[in-house]
Amino acid sequence: MSFQPVTACVLLIGNELLSGRTQDANLAHLATTLNEVGVSVREARVIPDDPKVIIETLNSVRARFDYVFTTGGIGPTHDDITAECVAEAFAVPLVMNEEIAETIRGYAKVRGMSDTVLAASLRMARVPEGARLLPTDVGAPGFAIDNVHVMAGIPAVMQSMISKLAPTLKGARPVRSRSVGAYLGESTIADALTALQNRFNDVDLGSYPFNDEGRYGTTLVARGTDEARLDAVLEALRQLIIDHGAEPLARS
Amino acid sequence: MSFQPVTACVLLIGNELLSGRTQDANLAHLATTLNEVGVSVREARVIPDDPKVIIETLNSVRARFDYVFTTGGIGPTHDDITAECVAEAFAVPLVMNEEIAETIRGYAKVRGMSDTVLAASLRMARVPEGARLLPTDVGAPGFAIDNVHVMAGIPAVMQSMISKLAPTLKGARPVRSRSVGAYLGESTIADALTALQNRFNDVDLGSYPFNDEGRYGTTLVARGTDEARLDAVLEALRQLIIDHGAEPLARS
Repeated sequence: MSFQPVTACVLLIGNELLSGRTQDANLAHLATTLNEVGVSVREARVIPDDPKVIIETLNSVRARFDYVFTTGGIGPTHDDITAECVAEAFAVPLVMNEEIAETIRGYAKVRGMSDTVLAASLRMARVPEGARLLPTDVGAPGFAIDNVHVMAGIPAVMQSMISKLAPTLKGARPVRSRSVGAYLGESTIADALTALQNRFNDVDLGSYPFNDEGRYGTTLVARGTDEARLDAVLEALRQLIIDHGAEPLARS
Repeated sequence: MSFQPVTACVLLIGNELLSGRTQDANLAHLATTLNEVGVSVREARVIPDDPKVIIETLNSVRARFDYVFTTGGIGPTHDDITAECVAEAFAVPLVMNEEIAETIRGYAKVRGMSDTVLAASLRMARVPEGARLLPTDVGAPGFAIDNVHVMAGIPAVMQSMISKLAPTLKGARPVRSRSVGAYLGESTIADALTALQNRFNDVDLGSYPFNDEGRYGTTLVARGTDEARLDAVLEALRQLIIDHGAEPLARS
């Protein structure tokens, strides 16, 4: 594409995502929300609760992308090691954040937590020195340091964090899309689609096969930053479908 | 863990996964199936339909993991570039595989495909020189070269491929799990769980918060290769829950 995108890498942290126990529910939501403010997710990695891997991956991707967003590993138990790994990646100490600690102590009072339980909860108040807080309406805050944003793995908490964070990011022009479907096989339209992609080289064309209760078809998706160009390519895609003897279908 | 695991990296290839359009449905299935034959998925990456990124990522991960499995980008359209990227990563030519080509020509005859459509479909018969085929009951075959296994992105096709492929892989002892839940917060049991993790250092303990219609709790999961040790740790986890005044719940 012809514009300079603002790029992001998403790190999904947790053994449970790699064992098959848990189906990730965060990447698609993050990608959609970030795209709305002009930040393009260009890569995502799912990595285990392994300090060496987390630290190496963080240091590799934070140098290569404008933004990094992590989910997972910021709870109160022994397998929640994201905060200490981020601190180590940035070579800064992990410190108790008084603002988070106060919130947790407030909860502790209301819920009548014992001192032991409070101490465990306060693990969630430790952030790398110099980190900014990421507010949330649900659970404890996340934090950011430099271009790395550390969020919860629980979808409801992550969603609250990113909804507040996204408007503060410096994005490029958001990528928009148009789509249209047809009961045509991908092979049938492959050549015409290649020709269209060459004609509209400032737009990304994708083709995705579908199966509607045994009826096969293809969804064609155009993505780009210029609405007028997208309208033009959509019209060309509809004509392509009609030229191949099928009817354009509303599909996303 | 105390045994030498056989490791795998999964590459999920496709712009649609990074734009938020499509929710990945392959990683959890792959991880579960591979684990059954003793292959541990240690990392997954979601990467775009970008030749440079695909080739660099392939060459980086195939050197670091025992196995690499890719999904996506092996259809007949211009954005299906996985086969040519794998060929380039291995520095071998992309060649027409006669076995796949014959299958496609067979389909073409049955379906009365035009020559143009057949030509596009035959894109799917191109594999890197020296590749082995990965059979499937659905769609066109995938292929493997060295330790890299190239599969379809469509879940039904990928699932057919991996079901036939998995039993042929050389795995270690499969990782098994035990789990138990309780209506207890993670903070409440964090210290006891850390102590248990230190006692059972050949088992991975994970804790995952849940919310059952407003009732909060935690699922505790133990993963390891020794069934007797897992039974012992499960018993200890149940006792831990009882000691904290709650009831062990059946949860996975």
